[in-house]
Amino acid sequence: MANFKGHAVPGSFFLIVGLWWSVKYPLKYFHQKGKNHQLNHNYPRLEIIEAAVRTLFSVIGFLAEQFVPDGPHFHLYSEDQWIKMMNWQHSTMYLFFAASGITDMLTYLITHIPLGLDRLVMAVATFTEGFLFYYHVHNRPLLDQHIHSLLLFAVFAGALSLFLEVIIRDNILLELFRTSLTILQGTWFWQIGFVLFPPFGTPEWDQKDHENIMFITMCFCWHYLVALCIVVINYSFVYCLLTRLKRHRDGEIIGIQKLKSGNTYHTALLNGSDEE
Amino acid sequence: MANFKGHAVPGSFFLIVGLWWSVKYPLKYFHQKGKNHQLNHNYPRLEIIEAAVRTLFSVIGFLAEQFVPDGPHFHLYSEDQWIKMMNWQHSTMYLFFAASGITDMLTYLITHIPLGLDRLVMAVATFTEGFLFYYHVHNRPLLDQHIHSLLLFAVFAGALSLFLEVIIRDNILLELFRTSLTILQGTWFWQIGFVLFPPFGTPEWDQKDHENIMFITMCFCWHYLVALCIVVINYSFVYCLLTRLKRHRDGEIIGIQKLKSGNTYHTALLNGSDEE
Amino acid sequence: MANFKGHAVPGSFFLIVGLWWSVKYPLKYFHQKGKNHQLNHNYPRLEIIEAAVRTLFSVIGFLAEQFVPDGPHFHLYSEDQWIKMMNWQHSTMYLFFAASGITDMLTYLITHIPLGLDRLVMAVATFTEGFLFYYHVHNRPLLDQHIHSLLLFAVFAGALSLFLEVIIRDNILLELFRTSLTILQGTWFWQIGFVLFPPFGTPEWDQKDHENIMFITMCFCWHYLVALCIVVINYSFVYCLLTRLKRHRDGEIIGIQKLKSGNTYHTALLNGSDEE
Amino acid sequence: MANFKGHAVPGSFFLIVGLWWSVKYPLKYFHQKGKNHQLNHNYPRLEIIEAAVRTLFSVIGFLAEQFVPDGPHFHLYSEDQWIKMMNWQHSTMYLFFAASGITDMLTYLITHIPLGLDRLVMAVATFTEGFLFYYHVHNRPLLDQHIHSLLLFAVFAGALSLFLEVIIRDNILLELFRTSLTILQGTWFWQIGFVLFPPFGTPEWDQKDHENIMFITMCFCWHYLVALCIVVINYSFVYCLLTRLKRHRDGEIIGIQKLKSGNTYHTALLNGSDEE
Repeated sequence: MANFKGHAVPGSFFLIVGLWWSVKYPLKYFHQKGKNHQLNHNYPRLEIIEAAVRTLFSVIGFLAEQFVPDGPHFHLYSEDQWIKMMNWQHSTMYLFFAASGITDMLTYLITHIPLGLDRLVMAVATFTEGFLFYYHVHNRPLLDQHIHSLLLFAVFAGALSLFLEVIIRDNILLELFRTSLTILQGTWFWQIGFVLFPPFGTPEWDQKDHENIMFITMCFCWHYLVALCIVVINYSFVYCLLTRLKRHRDGEIIGIQKLKSGNTYHTALLNGSDEE
Repeated sequence: MANFKGHAVPGSFFLIVGLWWSVKYPLKYFHQKGKNHQLNHNYPRLEIIEAAVRTLFSVIGFLAEQFVPDGPHFHLYSEDQWIKMMNWQHSTMYLFFAASGITDMLTYLITHIPLGLDRLVMAVATFTEGFLFYYHVHNRPLLDQHIHSLLLFAVFAGALSLFLEVIIRDNILLELFRTSLTILQGTWFWQIGFVLFPPFGTPEWDQKDHENIMFITMCFCWHYLVALCIVVINYSFVYCLLTRLKRHRDGEIIGIQKLKSGNTYHTALLNGSDEE
Repeated sequence: MANFKGHAVPGSFFLIVGLWWSVKYPLKYFHQKGKNHQLNHNYPRLEIIEAAVRTLFSVIGFLAEQFVPDGPHFHLYSEDQWIKMMNWQHSTMYLFFAASGITDMLTYLITHIPLGLDRLVMAVATFTEGFLFYYHVHNRPLLDQHIHSLLLFAVFAGALSLFLEVIIRDNILLELFRTSLTILQGTWFWQIGFVLFPPFGTPEWDQKDHENIMFITMCFCWHYLVALCIVVINYSFVYCLLTRLKRHRDGEIIGIQKLKSGNTYHTALLNGSDEE
Repeated sequence: MANFKGHAVPGSFFLIVGLWWSVKYPLKYFHQKGKNHQLNHNYPRLEIIEAAVRTLFSVIGFLAEQFVPDGPHFHLYSEDQWIKMMNWQHSTMYLFFAASGITDMLTYLITHIPLGLDRLVMAVATFTEGFLFYYHVHNRPLLDQHIHSLLLFAVFAGALSLFLEVIIRDNILLELFRTSLTILQGTWFWQIGFVLFPPFGTPEWDQKDHENIMFITMCFCWHYLVALCIVVINYSFVYCLLTRLKRHRDGEIIGIQKLKSGNTYHTALLNGSDEE
């Protein structure tokens, strides 16, 4: 869908997923360190819900690309020519993300599926997105081509990071790196929409101006810096929240123990050392 | 052999090998987890047979390229020019896969050869295939070049995955990834045959149409999705089969033990915990 | 700042950092081997000071690019055109290095930040530098383009090495490799300044001469050889210094012990085995 | 030295080193497995001698490039132009290999140098060779450019493999892979000499013929297959030799022990289990 909406919709999807991950992974990380059994028990359920939502997003995207008024409506070929290749390619991208979502669900539902398959299929889905985009933007004006090719950096770096996670699982840094790249993809889709299809009647950008190219390149870096900051802020926010919750809970426990035995000093000491 | 058969034959070879691997690797994986000594004992024999068959395939391919009616019949140079370079290049590809097959056999037959050499030579063979293809398709029409260059993605990704297996051996995910890429190669060879040399009198494809390029790119992604599905289905199929076989066998053992001692409850419990 | 100073300033920054690292990393390495608790205790403080200095450097660079007489003074866009894109791009580079410096400080100050984030953000900063340079030098004369593109080898190799350090931390070889590349960057910035903006009234270089290109390519290799030598010399220098200091200190201890118990032979033996 | 000799000399150097490595690494591997203390004791001495010989080779190559009749004789610049850039670039390559040789010696002579530095500097030397070659062959005829660019595959694959060895040391497969690539480089230098400067008065090759390009590409693969075979044969040869030597020695020991105590059965058993 070569219009503002067609970039805003996937952009929002990636942004939501990215922001959720920037909360989920720190949460998982601190709970694993604190050996919190409650979350470790509920964690697979959380993953399954997330994967279901991602699958739903992808299916919605897939159907939207097919059934927009000028879409192909599942017709692929007629009268000696291919119908709406653009929409079909976008559909294919959504299809792979749906496959990735389903694999994620299966990995946590069925125990005999090896861990890491979820990351492998997600890496494949991300690579496919970049792969199709790469052949997608030939024969376009210079700025259009450049702004899409910048997206490929985020996409391929994400695919590489995911592929590394197949081998090095549960590394918080790789997970946060991927999260920041997902947020970058989200915001950059919005940026593409604003540049190529100005929504509020602002004048169009000169597609051949070299200065525009230079600004857009730099703007991409700024987007990533913002994405990194979001990840760091959410990470710290999760840490503070967990620490406060822990203190509150410990306070209650200590209070109860006070009533029981009066021996609080030793307990507080234990909790303190547990916290690090 | 620039015709339909010349693509169908290697395509079938890759497809057979890929399908076999999609059964073999899950089989090995579940037996290793279950510490099944019977298969672990017979496993080297299985590998040697497989390697022998692959070597045979490669030798057949090699000889076919040499002795087809318009082949070079082992003549390389005469009257100041090279003879049938195309066939010679294909022969070379088969030669490397034959070398890989022989190395596989030797690795399992001779104990002093370090494990991993089989994967290294297979990586080299796969890389060589891609390397020769890369220089192979210059000066061809656009679609011809594009459809072959897509094959290179499957080939080089396979070579990379194999090279990783030299260091990280017996990783089920890398093995399944390689398997899916091998199936992709197989089906894509068939697709190339159908597109460039339509076998059933269907009209030829317009080699310069950009829409054709776009469809073929997308079609490649669909092939890979199908390959992934085949791998997952065969993996699940093997799991179900092994579980059923195990229950059947355990049932017999339990029956025997019932006759012997009547103490069945404890045995069933043990088997149950073994199954996970 | 497209003049001699604009290359000498960042060159000096990189050179200072590189030289400092070529002392710091050997120091850390020998102390970790010797299990010297004094340095291990003070080490975080050292890192924080270094990161603060690097942040300061980056902020100075950032402000300099903005407030030089012909700089943008924080104006980005006016009268339908972008203002001083060159300076803005350089500012962006400095901004990322400032972010890297701040992350370094935070990593050592706040215990709940995972180790390795500092390297990840530094890798991102280095990659961004290369990324912006890559799109920076289009439409320039041949020699200008070539001399900047050589810089990219140092930059991207450094980014890759840093990314590896996220996973393989505290590997002295990766640290020394990165150090040598940082020194190379420093000296190469100076070289670019001397070639493109000869400071002492020497004649300008012919930008299209192929011989100049060949010399500059070779010159880049020489710079790296010199950088390697500097790293090796400083490494040896640190080793000798530490050994001498140790002997001196041990001598004192032995002297004291002689006075105390006369049992020196055993102590010297222990120190000797400690030294290896 | 753009003549037959100028390719035969470095080719011979690489070939000798490659052949020696194809004997050395299996020797080291089997001794490490057999925990043979005698070789493990003498091994550093062996490495130092090898490194000294390699340094000598490189210095000879360096001086030859400078002092051939039409060489630069250490003159770099005069009368406003660079002197003999070709020879200087070749000299630089030799210089890096000399640096690598010296580093190897130092790594084994001085204990405080971290293991792996030898591989890192060798990786850098190999990369530099490829780097200089890459910019070396612009503006040449098609076949000349192609035949040199094929060399780059061997060079860069070798550099990558060496870089991996920095992290994964003493992996026999990486060592054999590098060895095979070194032999390939050696034979390919000879091949370049034969193609571009036919020594025995054979007619010159048509530099623009596409068939020649195709043959040369394939020929490169054949060279590698031969290199692989050489490595495998030498590996097996070393194994057979060591096994025979061991049996001979064991026989003597057993004979001696027979005379001493008559209790031979137990000793033979121990030796047998040692052999695996």
